[in-house]
Amino acid sequence: MGSKRQGAASVPADLQSLRDSIDNIDAALIYLLAERFKCTRRVGEFKATSGLPPGDPDREATQIDRLRALAKTAKLDPEFAEKFLNFIIAEVIRHHESIRARA
Amino acid sequence: MGSKRQGAASVPADLQSLRDSIDNIDAALIYLLAERFKCTRRVGEFKATSGLPPGDPDREATQIDRLRALAKTAKLDPEFAEKFLNFIIAEVIRHHESIRARA
Repeated sequence: MGSKRQGAASVPADLQSLRDSIDNIDAALIYLLAERFKCTRRVGEFKATSGLPPGDPDREATQIDRLRALAKTAKLDPEFAEKFLNFIIAEVIRHHESIRARA
Repeated sequence: MGSKRQGAASVPADLQSLRDSIDNIDAALIYLLAERFKCTRRVGEFKATSGLPPGDPDREATQIDRLRALAKTAKLDPEFAEKFLNFIIAEVIRHHESIRARA
């Protein structure tokens, strides 16, 4: 994976160290997102077979409140946490709609 | 954090179990994102004091290739992984520009 580090020789050591940490965190994020979509795929299948709508505004409002609170604890911008969740939910609803279309 | 679960009594147990897993994963994502932004904040400070530009197209292209490959391993849509990285990078560049403006 690390073979494409173009011009690594010209990157200062401090910057390279930070980039290595970012790359490690990104790998963890990708694997967690994969696991999250496994869960939401099962939610989508459950909703499609139960006749429930793909989106659930009450659930989403609860998730947003919770993630904003968690973001404050983690010293992450709560606005960003909300934008992030909306970004993920948009993708989830797209999946749910395609599951529904195939059902 | 779990006190705002509106209408939990009416949510089928299977769906609630999946939602609980999603909530656990979301907490992990938020804390990882907070750590990632700590790293990129330090990158931004380094770039601002070194006179380097906020964005780095070569680095971003390498990150995109790497995350797409990781996504395939994790059975996550590579297109989504790329959209996700672009979403994060847009926020990082916004941070870098504001660090530069204050420098």
